[in-house]
Amino acid sequence: MADGVTIAVDAMGGDFAPKAAIEGALMAVLDDGARVILVGDDEVIAHERRRLGDSGWLTEGRLVVEPASEVVAMDEPAVAVRSKRQASVRVCARLVREGRARAMVTAGHTGAAMIAAKTVIGTAPGVDRPALAAIFPSVGGKTVVLDVGANLDAKVRHLRQFAVMGHFYAQEMVGNPEPRIGLLSVGEEEGKGTDRLRKVYQVLKKTGLNFVGNVEGHDIFSGTVDVVVCDGFVGNAVLKGSEALARYVAGVLREELEGTVRSRLASLAAAPALRRFRDRVDFSEYGAAPLLGVRGGCFVGHGSSSATAIRNAVRRALEFSDLDVDAKIEERVADLHLQEARIFGDTAGEPS
Amino acid sequence: MADGVTIAVDAMGGDFAPKAAIEGALMAVLDDGARVILVGDDEVIAHERRRLGDSGWLTEGRLVVEPASEVVAMDEPAVAVRSKRQASVRVCARLVREGRARAMVTAGHTGAAMIAAKTVIGTAPGVDRPALAAIFPSVGGKTVVLDVGANLDAKVRHLRQFAVMGHFYAQEMVGNPEPRIGLLSVGEEEGKGTDRLRKVYQVLKKTGLNFVGNVEGHDIFSGTVDVVVCDGFVGNAVLKGSEALARYVAGVLREELEGTVRSRLASLAAAPALRRFRDRVDFSEYGAAPLLGVRGGCFVGHGSSSATAIRNAVRRALEFSDLDVDAKIEERVADLHLQEARIFGDTAGEPS
Repeated sequence: MADGVTIAVDAMGGDFAPKAAIEGALMAVLDDGARVILVGDDEVIAHERRRLGDSGWLTEGRLVVEPASEVVAMDEPAVAVRSKRQASVRVCARLVREGRARAMVTAGHTGAAMIAAKTVIGTAPGVDRPALAAIFPSVGGKTVVLDVGANLDAKVRHLRQFAVMGHFYAQEMVGNPEPRIGLLSVGEEEGKGTDRLRKVYQVLKKTGLNFVGNVEGHDIFSGTVDVVVCDGFVGNAVLKGSEALARYVAGVLREELEGTVRSRLASLAAAPALRRFRDRVDFSEYGAAPLLGVRGGCFVGHGSSSATAIRNAVRRALEFSDLDVDAKIEERVADLHLQEARIFGDTAGEPS
Repeated sequence: MADGVTIAVDAMGGDFAPKAAIEGALMAVLDDGARVILVGDDEVIAHERRRLGDSGWLTEGRLVVEPASEVVAMDEPAVAVRSKRQASVRVCARLVREGRARAMVTAGHTGAAMIAAKTVIGTAPGVDRPALAAIFPSVGGKTVVLDVGANLDAKVRHLRQFAVMGHFYAQEMVGNPEPRIGLLSVGEEEGKGTDRLRKVYQVLKKTGLNFVGNVEGHDIFSGTVDVVVCDGFVGNAVLKGSEALARYVAGVLREELEGTVRSRLASLAAAPALRRFRDRVDFSEYGAAPLLGVRGGCFVGHGSSSATAIRNAVRRALEFSDLDVDAKIEERVADLHLQEARIFGDTAGEPS
């Protein structure tokens, strides 16, 4: 593990675990030369690796196993992770804290991952709650939306922290020097939304970020904004709805193109264009989202992650680690919070 | 107005009002033979009609004007409608209450429309708050989502009422005899979501509706559920995001197909298939949503409604009126509430 970064992969998390997680980890090692620690039931992992034809020499020591005897199931409350000290997601977090892995990937229980990341790895100073940040395709390029599911009800100061982290994430990962930050609401006008959002609006106006005001659902795709701040409940619904709509639309297109001989022939001729189309509207490339504000990388994928989605999540974790995004966010959040303490006072001007 | 139903159209509501609203009303009269009362500044309306070449004989008395001297602007608080007794949206509501119009259409301030509908037209017994119901395309056919913007934070009993209204709306408008009702959350498991949603889950289990449990954003499009219940903030974000994503995807497809000569030729050959594709993923057909639970039809369109969107909204209002959807919902909600009073007690078992 001297050369290159190591990623811990939760072998037991997700609807298709352990198969999808183990196969995805194997793909990451073989396709991308990644170094992976697979975390979970070692007998199950050994059996699955044999089934996949990995007798060890293929992966040349780049795939190692860390035993974890427990799992947080999808239907358990997130807090179960507190008492299950040997839960795979918690062992992953421990590997990151101890520096044995630079980042972790899990497709398991989002709430449990959030608690493990927060309590075991720890958050950057000034960050009360990590936020799950997704990247959406848009007319202008890409839009960062956060939170997409780790914080179901965020308070005013949390949404302010999301805005700050979103700003630096867009700078680092999307390469946007001065990202436009919008607050998701039900109308563009300053007074729109709930009392809480009106408070957030006033706070964001003073952050020194490039805050463009309220935005609506359509702005995510229209290229009018680079970072959209929202609480995790609505962000999650929009993310999952959008992914499904993109799949639905691709399905309708296929149906219509295969409907007649003439259009079937036409679609053959248009195949390269249609392939590029699919690549551009495919969300699965962004199948996993990082928990920003954690002192290390923690990527959370969909429960329904396939092996390919896990492989892509490892890829994103490597990219994130190579760019030191977590360290940069930590450093800049600290700077900004020093400045903001002067504006908002130590408690950021509001207790809620 | 003896033959056929009359629809009141708010000439002053929406980003492109009065032009789009007036042209849309005119299209409804000319294309569909609708009877419309245009509500707004009569001089502005007269000027715009002349500009559009409508000297009156074209519309043969099927387009009449009701003066309204005030407007609720998009950046005003919704409650402004309470003091503006001559606001166009409020005059529309008055026409419905007085029976001069069977239903109304507005692309103006959603909150103001909600207040006007609730206080001037009135709600059905057992309905505390009307809900805006949108129809999404899905693999299975269509999915009703409510609320999509009239109730930013709905309480437990409101969400129960939305479920009941959504049930009957899906029966009437989608022709679904036993609609599957889902509660929008961040995971399918019973315990997922906020405390409030866990309460709603328990309440919906006892309603006698075909409640299938929690659903996620992707279920809206996957055909696994027919009615999705949520509060207006998240519903609005999902609706607007979805509409924009569908437009984005169609744009990407066009770009890719026009990218090379070969694919341009192919797209010409595939033109009929691509047209059918666009029709199937086009949300603008559903540009306006009814406020369910109002004693009459009240359709609210996007602020950005075009003339075509207004024409389609009138079309939907006529369809809704022909089927007497409001009266049927009123009758059935009353029945169901009688039954439920036995289960939940008079206050539906919870005060929040």
